[in-house]
Amino acid sequence: KFSVKGPSSHQVYASFDIFKGKAALSLTPVLPTFTKLESGSLVVDRRGSVMLKFTPAIGERKYDWEKRQMFALSATEVGALISLGPNDSCELFHDPSMKSSNAGQVRKSLSIKPHADGSGYFVSLTVVNNLLKTRESFSVPVTTAEFAVMKTACSFALPHIMGWDRLTNKMPAGGGGGGGQ
Amino acid sequence: KFSVKGPSSHQVYASFDIFKGKAALSLTPVLPTFTKLESGSLVVDRRGSVMLKFTPAIGERKYDWEKRQMFALSATEVGALISLGPNDSCELFHDPSMKSSNAGQVRKSLSIKPHADGSGYFVSLTVVNNLLKTRESFSVPVTTAEFAVMKTACSFALPHIMGWDRLTNKMPAGGGGGGGQ
Amino acid sequence: KFSVKGPSSHQVYASFDIFKGKAALSLTPVLPTFTKLESGSLVVDRRGSVMLKFTPAIGERKYDWEKRQMFALSATEVGALISLGPNDSCELFHDPSMKSSNAGQVRKSLSIKPHADGSGYFVSLTVVNNLLKTRESFSVPVTTAEFAVMKTACSFALPHIMGWDRLTNKMPAGGGGGGGQ
Amino acid sequence: KFSVKGPSSHQVYASFDIFKGKAALSLTPVLPTFTKLESGSLVVDRRGSVMLKFTPAIGERKYDWEKRQMFALSATEVGALISLGPNDSCELFHDPSMKSSNAGQVRKSLSIKPHADGSGYFVSLTVVNNLLKTRESFSVPVTTAEFAVMKTACSFALPHIMGWDRLTNKMPAGGGGGGGQ
Repeated sequence: KFSVKGPSSHQVYASFDIFKGKAALSLTPVLPTFTKLESGSLVVDRRGSVMLKFTPAIGERKYDWEKRQMFALSATEVGALISLGPNDSCELFHDPSMKSSNAGQVRKSLSIKPHADGSGYFVSLTVVNNLLKTRESFSVPVTTAEFAVMKTACSFALPHIMGWDRLTNKMPAGGGGGGGQ
Repeated sequence: KFSVKGPSSHQVYASFDIFKGKAALSLTPVLPTFTKLESGSLVVDRRGSVMLKFTPAIGERKYDWEKRQMFALSATEVGALISLGPNDSCELFHDPSMKSSNAGQVRKSLSIKPHADGSGYFVSLTVVNNLLKTRESFSVPVTTAEFAVMKTACSFALPHIMGWDRLTNKMPAGGGGGGGQ
Repeated sequence: KFSVKGPSSHQVYASFDIFKGKAALSLTPVLPTFTKLESGSLVVDRRGSVMLKFTPAIGERKYDWEKRQMFALSATEVGALISLGPNDSCELFHDPSMKSSNAGQVRKSLSIKPHADGSGYFVSLTVVNNLLKTRESFSVPVTTAEFAVMKTACSFALPHIMGWDRLTNKMPAGGGGGGGQ
Repeated sequence: KFSVKGPSSHQVYASFDIFKGKAALSLTPVLPTFTKLESGSLVVDRRGSVMLKFTPAIGERKYDWEKRQMFALSATEVGALISLGPNDSCELFHDPSMKSSNAGQVRKSLSIKPHADGSGYFVSLTVVNNLLKTRESFSVPVTTAEFAVMKTACSFALPHIMGWDRLTNKMPAGGGGGGGQ
């Protein structure tokens, strides 16, 4: 058993960025990693996600990248985002230290709440760190058009972060067919 | 006429899994297989599906993989799933021994029923086996977010299990165009 | 200027078939053909379509393939199909001899009409041939689930029949970037 | 740091064209360009867009291609288009000389307004040029079916103009896996 890495595994930076007055929100898909079994089969090793990054503003069009906070949406959490109706809201909680000795010490909560007039959403992240006695909060107003981009891009990314795009009928010249089961 | 297999036909394991208290439900796309005619044309041999697997729980976060039961959704059955509105339900029946001497002896029925409060669905499978005098039943509550993942992933998979992704305008360097008709 | 054909332009047969009592309806995407300019650029030569084929039944599960009639949906006609609401209907007309001396002699009309109870559509084709003094009519009842497959598969096929899938950021090893404009 | 261009970066011409009595409207996706860092990573250099081109008619089925005017939709503006409901309208403004000494001298405004009977939209472009003292106006009636093509094609194009299609799990023979983060 070995990890699958190779020449094409360079990083690509193509985030979708929403710059607003108090903070910026950026989205990037993170692909799953695979492990190749001796049989040649591939198994998803680490699941993919859509990474949300919040960065506070420190002046006009200036952001403090060292203070950014991340929140990685799992496939199901992406499902929650793309199924939000115009008046729906949702709230998601993460504990980055889950299953370690620091479990429960840091609590991240992401909330998506509709504007009262239906013209978009507030996307907010709060990070409470009991170890450092800190509480950071970010809130980015997202227009209907920007949220449509988020939904469409996340719907596109979803099969990829699940690894389902590996299952497609691509065929090298003269080569292989679909793997039946 | 020969079957199309090759170096790229290794298996990929990338199921979408929903683990709940009494059972787990997992979805995996299964690609069609093709046969290459002497003319070089490809014909779909065995149609693809989205495989649903139900596994009973036998303790906290433990599942009895030997007792799993399968239900393979055809393209049209995938169409039934992705067109379900929030208050719709559907029921599908399979006879795994259809057209054999045991026809009618085993009956699988899959039902998808909305929660009364619109917060998701119950996805259930019942397998009645008259030969073994057994009746097994699985029921997995699926949240709206999880069902959104199922719908989006199944919509992505649908053209692939139909073999339509083979028809795309991919072009090797210096190579071929679209096959007109 | 020359036509773009090559080793990968073999045909693929992967139609979506709906077999009913009086007739069968099958859908297949037909890709556009491209012409390569001396500059190396590609221009769409013949536009793609989604081909509908209607075949009359001549017995139980038997169809008379010699009597099949075709109707090729253009991109805009595919747009009409995928934007149909559950109670909408549409009617499309083709003259296969348009711009020839036989213009107006053959008239094909495709109609899609919802069932009264909202449980699907009737998809019908009528071909009136004034030269042969014939009138052929086909009507296939399509369930909601089957129509969902038609919509999803046609939405998938649409960018391909338009040639937009050629514009994607695929990159050969060490190779080229996106063509800016 | 160098620009990513190569053998596959030939142009592809596959616009979606709507020819109407007073003007034609055509849509083409424009891919982003990438820059390769020394590390081998790729960064989006110039963002992609969906280019709208308006061309005035000068006779029956004749258009004056020298008088065409362009309007490049950004990802967020594509989001505004694809999230338009049947009775919604939107208006977008561009200043092609933004951040130059001519800022404010040319003003382009694109408006999408629904027909009163819900049977489609008017898509209009007005270009006011204070330097040349000119004002040009184009208006193209777009049917529901044509708008469905625009929406579906733009939804398809969106991840591509954002560069997210570069992030997919494509794997060269024997080659690399997904780039984790």
